[in-house]
Amino acid sequence: MKKIAVVLAGCGRMDGSEIHESVLTLLSIEQAGANYQCFSPDLAQDHVTNHLNNETTNETRNMLVESARIARGNVKKLEELNSNDYDALIIPGGNGITANLFTLAQDGADYTVNPTLSKIAQSFTTAGKVVGFICIAPVMIPAIYNFPVNMTIGSDEGTAALVTKRGAIHHSSTVDEICVDEKYKIVSTAAYMLAGNILEAYSGINKLVHKVVELA
Amino acid sequence: MKKIAVVLAGCGRMDGSEIHESVLTLLSIEQAGANYQCFSPDLAQDHVTNHLNNETTNETRNMLVESARIARGNVKKLEELNSNDYDALIIPGGNGITANLFTLAQDGADYTVNPTLSKIAQSFTTAGKVVGFICIAPVMIPAIYNFPVNMTIGSDEGTAALVTKRGAIHHSSTVDEICVDEKYKIVSTAAYMLAGNILEAYSGINKLVHKVVELA
Repeated sequence: MKKIAVVLAGCGRMDGSEIHESVLTLLSIEQAGANYQCFSPDLAQDHVTNHLNNETTNETRNMLVESARIARGNVKKLEELNSNDYDALIIPGGNGITANLFTLAQDGADYTVNPTLSKIAQSFTTAGKVVGFICIAPVMIPAIYNFPVNMTIGSDEGTAALVTKRGAIHHSSTVDEICVDEKYKIVSTAAYMLAGNILEAYSGINKLVHKVVELA
Repeated sequence: MKKIAVVLAGCGRMDGSEIHESVLTLLSIEQAGANYQCFSPDLAQDHVTNHLNNETTNETRNMLVESARIARGNVKKLEELNSNDYDALIIPGGNGITANLFTLAQDGADYTVNPTLSKIAQSFTTAGKVVGFICIAPVMIPAIYNFPVNMTIGSDEGTAALVTKRGAIHHSSTVDEICVDEKYKIVSTAAYMLAGNILEAYSGINKLVHKVVELA
């Protein structure tokens, strides 16, 4: 059975990983006949957001501890993720990861990716293994890889221009589509960058996961 | 399009609503051709649990605010839920609801149900509308209704004895089965009372939701 590593970064769209996207990824992995292990940085979240009014609170929360809510307790530290042990890597989205996994929220167009995550993704790709990026996560692609990758973040022109400027080859897509870079085995889909409801998010995520498992 | 009210009580299996069960319920509602609105008590959670080590923390969190993570911000106060506006009601499970929505954690066999929720569920049933209970949520059934209801919590003998003592008619079930009380239109399924993985949880939840929407 193929083993898929899933990287989370908290529990909630505004300050962590998007919950629907994360759960739909886990469901789709099992539907595709594979299994998963969740990982998360053991770091404080950049911020905590009240998801009812979208205001930042004065709380502090740890990504690994909050990711454990989505993973039902079974989540390991990102540092323990070795690409030798898994067939593929998938990273769900959420506004929160733009501050927790990379620095788009802090640094704008000059964003960088968490160095541990960057090395892990590179190591999967170097080994000829598959990496899947969902929603806003594909924005990390040109900051992780020093070669141009075919990818999608949906159809938002500002975000497309951003990743193009950073060296990616962007392809506009609809919510039920995926973009597959066949050479580097990097797969992306827009999910809640475009989805108006959970069924739409599921359509692209399920397709991405099945492609990732197929290529793994 | 049929409208389903979903009651949450926080975000996490140990101190709120079980996340997988909640998201799979929302997905299944849309797959069944209906739509949903989430509701939650606007009350402090009974406790906050670190889901990595299952220890209680000294934090305080509000059910409505945390439920908004699962509902992507679109959650209303439980008091605003009027059975006239919806075709059915569904309550996902999670250990957390045994302390947040009813008092099994505090009072054991003498548990009572949040009075607002109890009246709402009664009002759906009195109107001939459907109510679905998932995982540990069916334990509330004999404390809500003053008549015997056919129901399941899976196959845990202690929990089955508990609900039987309180007046329910318990039917042992497997994870992919549902129990339907045809007379009162009350549907239940075990989900993570039995599920060993998300695919198993989905099997029963998806079946329950489709039955709820069909009967609605």
